[in-house]
Amino acid sequence: MDPKLLSAIQRQNEQAISDLKRFVAQPSISAQGVGMTEAAQLTADLLASAGFEVQILPTEGPYPVVIGTQRGATDRTLLFYDHYDVQPPDPVDLWETPPFQPTIREGKLFGRGVSDNKANIISRLAAVRALRDAYGTLPISVKFIIEGEEEVGSPHLPSFVECHRDLLAADACIWESGAVDWDGAPQVVLGLKGILYVTLRVSSMARDAHSSTGTHLPNAAWRLIWAIASMKGPDERIQIDGFYDAVRQPTAAEIAAADRMPYDEVRTRQSYRIERFLLGLEGAELRRRILFEPVLNVCGLSAGYQGPGSKTVIPAEATAKLDFRLVPDQRPDDILKKLRAHLDQHGFGDIQIEAENHGENPARTPLDHPFARLVADAALEVYGRTAAIVPTMAGSGPMFSFTDTLGLPVASAGAGYPDSRAHAPNENIRLADFENAVKHVAVIIQKMASDTW
Amino acid sequence: MDPKLLSAIQRQNEQAISDLKRFVAQPSISAQGVGMTEAAQLTADLLASAGFEVQILPTEGPYPVVIGTQRGATDRTLLFYDHYDVQPPDPVDLWETPPFQPTIREGKLFGRGVSDNKANIISRLAAVRALRDAYGTLPISVKFIIEGEEEVGSPHLPSFVECHRDLLAADACIWESGAVDWDGAPQVVLGLKGILYVTLRVSSMARDAHSSTGTHLPNAAWRLIWAIASMKGPDERIQIDGFYDAVRQPTAAEIAAADRMPYDEVRTRQSYRIERFLLGLEGAELRRRILFEPVLNVCGLSAGYQGPGSKTVIPAEATAKLDFRLVPDQRPDDILKKLRAHLDQHGFGDIQIEAENHGENPARTPLDHPFARLVADAALEVYGRTAAIVPTMAGSGPMFSFTDTLGLPVASAGAGYPDSRAHAPNENIRLADFENAVKHVAVIIQKMASDTW
Repeated sequence: MDPKLLSAIQRQNEQAISDLKRFVAQPSISAQGVGMTEAAQLTADLLASAGFEVQILPTEGPYPVVIGTQRGATDRTLLFYDHYDVQPPDPVDLWETPPFQPTIREGKLFGRGVSDNKANIISRLAAVRALRDAYGTLPISVKFIIEGEEEVGSPHLPSFVECHRDLLAADACIWESGAVDWDGAPQVVLGLKGILYVTLRVSSMARDAHSSTGTHLPNAAWRLIWAIASMKGPDERIQIDGFYDAVRQPTAAEIAAADRMPYDEVRTRQSYRIERFLLGLEGAELRRRILFEPVLNVCGLSAGYQGPGSKTVIPAEATAKLDFRLVPDQRPDDILKKLRAHLDQHGFGDIQIEAENHGENPARTPLDHPFARLVADAALEVYGRTAAIVPTMAGSGPMFSFTDTLGLPVASAGAGYPDSRAHAPNENIRLADFENAVKHVAVIIQKMASDTW
Repeated sequence: MDPKLLSAIQRQNEQAISDLKRFVAQPSISAQGVGMTEAAQLTADLLASAGFEVQILPTEGPYPVVIGTQRGATDRTLLFYDHYDVQPPDPVDLWETPPFQPTIREGKLFGRGVSDNKANIISRLAAVRALRDAYGTLPISVKFIIEGEEEVGSPHLPSFVECHRDLLAADACIWESGAVDWDGAPQVVLGLKGILYVTLRVSSMARDAHSSTGTHLPNAAWRLIWAIASMKGPDERIQIDGFYDAVRQPTAAEIAAADRMPYDEVRTRQSYRIERFLLGLEGAELRRRILFEPVLNVCGLSAGYQGPGSKTVIPAEATAKLDFRLVPDQRPDDILKKLRAHLDQHGFGDIQIEAENHGENPARTPLDHPFARLVADAALEVYGRTAAIVPTMAGSGPMFSFTDTLGLPVASAGAGYPDSRAHAPNENIRLADFENAVKHVAVIIQKMASDTW
């Protein structure tokens, strides 16, 4: 990369670390409503101090979205999607230093939210500053959308994006996650799975009964078990009519990229102390399944007596928490309808389904999109390593609003690494990764000025 | 009945009620170890004051058995099985008067354990006293075995009975339960189902995982659901190989008795707010199933996240509590082996089974046994109503030790009625039922002197 840009980045590194510590020290726990107003204001202040015009806009939910825009030399525009909220810090006693007291140890910065995803926000701002410092002007226009409900499923973001298409108009989008793998090779992620999360609720009678009446009184736990077992057997194939109808088969290029995806099978099996993965999966078959297969999970079960020893009872109530992980072009509302139809057809019309918000659509940017190539090329320039282009993550997020509602190519770039412990105690980033993340974004912005599609 | 006996019973009624209040005022909660030593001693004192030779004998468990023997005019011997322990009084705030402060209201005596089964013990003692008062001698010999662990599954009674066959030798046994139905007709019960209670435990990996990994990491909740679903479907037929092998078909007389069994279907359905019983059962089919069909119940389920809202997690642990209700001649140890084999055969060799103690064998006295007739005839004489002879209850208890280990015919007689609320707040008996229970036992003892088999 250009030595002028490199030295500009190095000049503002101290300021960036200082900003990041200040940002992390501000709690912003959306699940608990802690510090959200102050965090939104601080986000706006940080953007403003980097030269952005800032708006704090309400959504239909409790926490506002922070929007930043900065005009550059051209109308060509890069949009950053990030979030200012963080996960709860529990269990707090497992933290080596307090979660909201950012601390540097052994080249790492520890604190809740540092990796997911406050360092990314600060790294993008540092890149913008360095570009202006190096060249006197920003080569393209840059926008930010920074929401406050990512950690609670972004329930109000899709409608916000629908209503603010003009404000958010851009040519491409950089996603909030982004990391290097254990070997230091950068990963460029182009998609996310969708999700539908439901609670199934069975109420079989007015109250629990003595289990000697099990011959003739209806048992809610049995009904729940039968209903769930009807949806999937040990072959892992989901039996809901039409469940796979909308599944778009991955392209040959996506399959090839999945096969190349770094995944440490031995380390993962050791970590979970399992002898084999489900269905005996390994190698390419395992990687394809992780990326391209929708799945139905039982996240929780609850019925009757759960304490020590015995209680002879017929449960009148039973509940299960299920999540469906969806792939393009499945839709949570369609799957919800098919789930209802499945239960009705199998004699479980009495089982209630409560959906947690509207779920999230899956989203994927094509592997051969020029923007994917641009982000990978920039990574090669900064990291000196060929980036692994990953067609999709197994996780979920509000990416569909950007790929489909706004029609943008989306790719990840960021400061994470495999031991960043997002959502866990002792969340951290390595400072060397942070500096690379600043460089990566700066080069992406540079390349956007010349590369067109 | 003989007017001499009747007036003797009436003479000692006041003393009996006073003894009963004293007995109920003494807590004896085996599940919590409250008042057990004092209650065993009080039981012994009450027996001694009615002329019994008393022994307080240890078992392999924490609470002793109280044995009473009283020689009568002949060696012919009637044995009473009862228990001095009671259920915990919780929830205490639903009691109208304190559970261990026996109180008479509207012809009923309220208190924990009054119906189950302290009134029965006192009624038998009152009958013995009245017979001696009326005739100067007891027409036959009488024994008591009164245990302290009935409410926790009588885990140590079978081995106690095995070791004390001579001490307990008798010609017949009166069982602790016994009641009139809603119409005031006495019920004579001749059997109990057996029980096997197990906890199934699945551990699929070292710790919970994020549910985006559900494509390839093993989910303990799914394995539990599949394992349980493999045992029984909505047709209620148990699919464990050999489960029904030992089931003895009920005799024509038992079936006829079941068909005549009073069971208020409408009232039960209204009470549980259900439109129909399982499988649409009603009438004779319903009654036969209640009495003669073994059943597999899910008493509890627990896995993963059970709180409000959503948590996206693959549970590493899942447990279920199951009970099997068994009929002659099934055995809990045999069913436990068959359950293990079933899980192994169906690919669930990793699922652990923890059995709660050894379970209880089913037991049944033949309907045509002369003792059954004797108890029914005595009931007709006392209640002026034909007794309903019920081949078996749907519940469980340690009856097998008496029917099979000791080889005795067993029938119930007691002071309960359908609203006695055993195990529930405001447990009570009606004083009129109590007096009838005294008379019934007195006449049974009289008839034992002349009736032989």
